[in-house]
Amino acid sequence: MPTFDTIAFDADDTLWHSERHYAQTQAEFTKLLAHYRDEAYIHAHLYEVESRNIQHFGYGVKGFALSMIESAVELTDGRVSGNDIKTIINLARNMLNADIELLDGVSETIESLAARCRLMVITKGDLLDQEKKIQRSGLGKFFHRIEIVSEKTRESYARLLAEHSIAPQRFFMVGNSLRSDILPILELGGSAAYIPYEITWQHETAEAPVGHAGFHRLERIGQLLALLDELEMYR
Amino acid sequence: MPTFDTIAFDADDTLWHSERHYAQTQAEFTKLLAHYRDEAYIHAHLYEVESRNIQHFGYGVKGFALSMIESAVELTDGRVSGNDIKTIINLARNMLNADIELLDGVSETIESLAARCRLMVITKGDLLDQEKKIQRSGLGKFFHRIEIVSEKTRESYARLLAEHSIAPQRFFMVGNSLRSDILPILELGGSAAYIPYEITWQHETAEAPVGHAGFHRLERIGQLLALLDELEMYR
Repeated sequence: MPTFDTIAFDADDTLWHSERHYAQTQAEFTKLLAHYRDEAYIHAHLYEVESRNIQHFGYGVKGFALSMIESAVELTDGRVSGNDIKTIINLARNMLNADIELLDGVSETIESLAARCRLMVITKGDLLDQEKKIQRSGLGKFFHRIEIVSEKTRESYARLLAEHSIAPQRFFMVGNSLRSDILPILELGGSAAYIPYEITWQHETAEAPVGHAGFHRLERIGQLLALLDELEMYR
Repeated sequence: MPTFDTIAFDADDTLWHSERHYAQTQAEFTKLLAHYRDEAYIHAHLYEVESRNIQHFGYGVKGFALSMIESAVELTDGRVSGNDIKTIINLARNMLNADIELLDGVSETIESLAARCRLMVITKGDLLDQEKKIQRSGLGKFFHRIEIVSEKTRESYARLLAEHSIAPQRFFMVGNSLRSDILPILELGGSAAYIPYEITWQHETAEAPVGHAGFHRLERIGQLLALLDELEMYR
């Protein structure tokens, strides 16, 4: 019997590139407002507005867009032009329609694993945006269930596992955020592979639980099959 | 045996008032821009922007806010002030934090029904916003499952029913939108009660399927128990 019933994947920056689109949009935003403030100031201000708005707007591009617009008004003391506002909305629309670029090794890994056990996606963000990305990624068919949640906490994972009758001990999560993908799963008694992405959003940083029995760290998703083999999944 | 296994409810304008918040916000938006354009023009323009943006932003307050902002820039040929943009963002934040006002008869009806069969909420909109509204409504405990979807189509309902192993013939949906709550369910072979709300958003209008065996029209949710009794639910 395999060690795990279900292997779940985070989506953004685990299956496909996402944070680089945010970084690129933020660079455009900074350029747009460069004649008002310096780069570091704009960066810090936008993060502050995003952080205070998360409770209202949640995660995802739409909330990010509203925070950019609000930040632009505040950074310019209300002098930002209508055209600049329009540019910001266009940046957000471009993010929503950007091509999906899978991370190296994702296709092969997901396809191989899907033939052997039940796969899930557990992601946060805007519902429609995440659904469309999964569709455009071409990976939808490999996943037994797609779960889009507003927050990835111990409670939200516990609810999901209960809904799908999965014992935490038989659950394995793969993701690039210690805070959202790894720590809550370990707390519940599950196992997890942390695969850091080239950029980590400030909001998602956390201490790695080195030494925890269920914790694994990989350099890239291509190493996942070997890890699972080692964990005697396929005895 | 009851006739139906599951009774599902739309949320906005079926369980609690929602469209009146949109109408009120739109009135504030119109007042804000009244020195640029007349009311009818602003109304028509905002609806046009909303309609073209739905494919990108989906349903809900965040997309509505982005459409108001974009409409404001276009309606004023880019002359809208930063303060007016800030006001629009505040209107959206107020909508997200507005008190939940249940429709008359909702509490009693939901509580009675929950004691007798399995209840679900099926709603579209922004994930976090809808979750928070269900929480604030105090009704969450009466529902077996809360499903927030990006679009209410025949396909999305068929997927949900399959996931929960519910036969369409044993499924009853209650809602205020013919287009989103009623017609797709009837097409699948289910039954539905249409309870019109005092305002119907232009986007949701459709022809009533009068004469369809599974179609029922009520004036208010307080009539639902009597209808279900009549349909021999509690034989």
